[in-house]
Amino acid sequence: MSLGDPRDVVAAKRDGRHLPPEELRAFVQGYARGEIRDEVAAAFLMAAFIRGLDAEETLALTRAMVESGRTLPLAGVSRPKVDKHSTGGVADGVTLAFAPLAASLGLAVAKLSGRGLGHTGGTLDKLEAIPGLRTDLSPEDFERQVEQVGCAVAAQTPDLVPADGALYALRDATATVPSIPLIAASVMSKKLAVSTDLILLDVKAGSGAFMKTPEAAKELAFACSALAANWGRPCRVAVTDMSQPLGEAIGNALDVAEAVELLSGRAGGRLRELVVAFAGEALSRLTGAGMGQGRAAAASALDSGVALESFRRMVEAQGGDPRVVDDPAAVLPRAPVVTTLTSDRGGFLAAVEAEALGRAACDLGAGRKKKGEPIDPAVGIVFRPKVGDRLEVGEEIGTVHARDADAAARCMDRVRAALTITEAGAQPPPLVHGWFGG
Amino acid sequence: MSLGDPRDVVAAKRDGRHLPPEELRAFVQGYARGEIRDEVAAAFLMAAFIRGLDAEETLALTRAMVESGRTLPLAGVSRPKVDKHSTGGVADGVTLAFAPLAASLGLAVAKLSGRGLGHTGGTLDKLEAIPGLRTDLSPEDFERQVEQVGCAVAAQTPDLVPADGALYALRDATATVPSIPLIAASVMSKKLAVSTDLILLDVKAGSGAFMKTPEAAKELAFACSALAANWGRPCRVAVTDMSQPLGEAIGNALDVAEAVELLSGRAGGRLRELVVAFAGEALSRLTGAGMGQGRAAAASALDSGVALESFRRMVEAQGGDPRVVDDPAAVLPRAPVVTTLTSDRGGFLAAVEAEALGRAACDLGAGRKKKGEPIDPAVGIVFRPKVGDRLEVGEEIGTVHARDADAAARCMDRVRAALTITEAGAQPPPLVHGWFGG
Repeated sequence: MSLGDPRDVVAAKRDGRHLPPEELRAFVQGYARGEIRDEVAAAFLMAAFIRGLDAEETLALTRAMVESGRTLPLAGVSRPKVDKHSTGGVADGVTLAFAPLAASLGLAVAKLSGRGLGHTGGTLDKLEAIPGLRTDLSPEDFERQVEQVGCAVAAQTPDLVPADGALYALRDATATVPSIPLIAASVMSKKLAVSTDLILLDVKAGSGAFMKTPEAAKELAFACSALAANWGRPCRVAVTDMSQPLGEAIGNALDVAEAVELLSGRAGGRLRELVVAFAGEALSRLTGAGMGQGRAAAASALDSGVALESFRRMVEAQGGDPRVVDDPAAVLPRAPVVTTLTSDRGGFLAAVEAEALGRAACDLGAGRKKKGEPIDPAVGIVFRPKVGDRLEVGEEIGTVHARDADAAARCMDRVRAALTITEAGAQPPPLVHGWFGG
Repeated sequence: MSLGDPRDVVAAKRDGRHLPPEELRAFVQGYARGEIRDEVAAAFLMAAFIRGLDAEETLALTRAMVESGRTLPLAGVSRPKVDKHSTGGVADGVTLAFAPLAASLGLAVAKLSGRGLGHTGGTLDKLEAIPGLRTDLSPEDFERQVEQVGCAVAAQTPDLVPADGALYALRDATATVPSIPLIAASVMSKKLAVSTDLILLDVKAGSGAFMKTPEAAKELAFACSALAANWGRPCRVAVTDMSQPLGEAIGNALDVAEAVELLSGRAGGRLRELVVAFAGEALSRLTGAGMGQGRAAAASALDSGVALESFRRMVEAQGGDPRVVDDPAAVLPRAPVVTTLTSDRGGFLAAVEAEALGRAACDLGAGRKKKGEPIDPAVGIVFRPKVGDRLEVGEEIGTVHARDADAAARCMDRVRAALTITEAGAQPPPLVHGWFGG
């Protein structure tokens, strides 16, 4: 459909009217082609932010975004294909471990990923901490690796959903980011452009996440699962806890080391629990296994070492040093200064400002404040306690990996300031707030 | 005040929060200086459109707009100074006649004007139909003429409220024009930038006006008078009928000829009634005369010829051919084709689509569809009947002044199509729906 006066679309949404799918689609396509100016699209985004987009409009927006670029049909992949995405958190190494684990279970994980921004880490940055590893795979190499190895994690190319990049930059400039339908369209467009059999989405909720409450996260989870359902793509969405760091490692090489521990069956805790839950979900949806059966198979793949072997093959296929799975400390870059993190108070850990920990790691150099900034793969924080744990004064609670002693000391202060320690005992928050979609 | 992150201002208005005046002012100043991009301002305008601006915010916006350029203090003008502005209509020659009339009554009329757009005429275009007449007066010449002649009508210069031009263009592009506070700020900023003792505002209501109903027009009238009151400037606002053309002439030379008739005391009707009402209002507010006394003085100035003499002096001061007041037909440009307009039906004139008449005249060449287009001063329509009049089949109801016979014939059809003629009698609408302000 060709577009008439784009101001008619803006005015309709301004007045709270439902937009016919074809009109909304023509508007977004016009913007993607550069025929509609930024200020006109900005006015539309603000109107959509305030008036909302219903399910049909969100679908039309998403469709137009996907149509703005190339898609990945993955026709050459014979195994059941799954994609897994997190909305972003602190010490959130689920994807890094999930991909080789699911591959070792006979599934194919086709994962296009982005880089970290602000306090949240990105899977690409983590993987690139492995010497030699490349994430700029061509679509052909990506597909071939998914078929042969069972998993690949590559950088999202600009020709996949280019409208999303443009719209996101405009939303960022115009205070229109935190809108549920706009976020859902942005997240899901990049997943729907890749033809997988199942999308697994992890919507994080809490102090270290974009959605600060489980309620807000559930709203987004519902919008994303409704969008997938209207598209006709199976999708399961979990809302999970990010009121504290999920794992222990906040930093890129540290994250890889933690993933190796997990994939070797040597680590327990909430990170393992969530990785197993996602792998069980994927198995049960794609192979018809029961949920308990699926989780047991996943746990067994971790404990037997087959998941670690999948990781080795993935690292090798992407040019990375495969010895990272045998001796991470010897292969991964190491920070010049490593200091012990101790508690300055005694009592029960009642709360952790996860975002503050993410920002402290970012300031060490582990993350970037603006797109395109370089990062230091070696630095970061290992923070071990979980909410509900009892701490003693002077107890070792982790390590800081920094470029110099000053930075390490500043980081230690910031970590301590991010902890709430009380006399009374504290209840650990639930790990999973709920599952959505079908 | 310097501006922090302009997105904070956008987000506050997006969420319906009241903006502190200093923040709103800094935002508008930042936009006027080019430090805030169009898309950010567009998002703000849409948020302001939907969420509204209260009286304090509208005042702050207006103040920032006025501060964006130079102002005219008019310190050298000794008489009481009045400005008169219409929101625009069809056959609305009030300002053209009001300025010399008020001058002949001892007041000073300092009028900066714009050009016509679409179906509405502009006072500048009308005056420039007089051979030789210039409207590009320097601020110094403008002020000198106001003092010496008692009136001047000059083109608004781009250095007066430059933020208004930029914001209006952005509103036009982003479907954010029809917002009461944004319109009020736009209209009033240009009036408040000129230091007069009284602002008279004519908010038109009806089919030929921007505000289609008296209710909507009253809302705008209220917003404008509240803005003037909060600024501390005396202002009187009338809401008047534009459900039919006010006078008879729609076209630039035709308008001037009608003004000459009126200023000679030879014309009656609704146009004269409204001109006298505004002049009476100005006299009563600025000289303490009673309202009846003021109107009587205005009527007398028309009938005695002193108002016409003021017009002659104004035309002469601005370089125009002063003989226009003695023999308009000899001096003003004439269209090559003049045809008689007749009614094709008999009955009572129940309604006139005033905008359709304005557009028909525009298409003859009397107006411009886009800013900057040239116009033909000679062409236009004279349309005599008023709602409530009885028409006979074939009765002469006016004339069409066109470039060629085809254009004249098309125009005749359009005029006829714009008339509703009924068997039953029709009630003339009230001329003035109400007065606002103090």
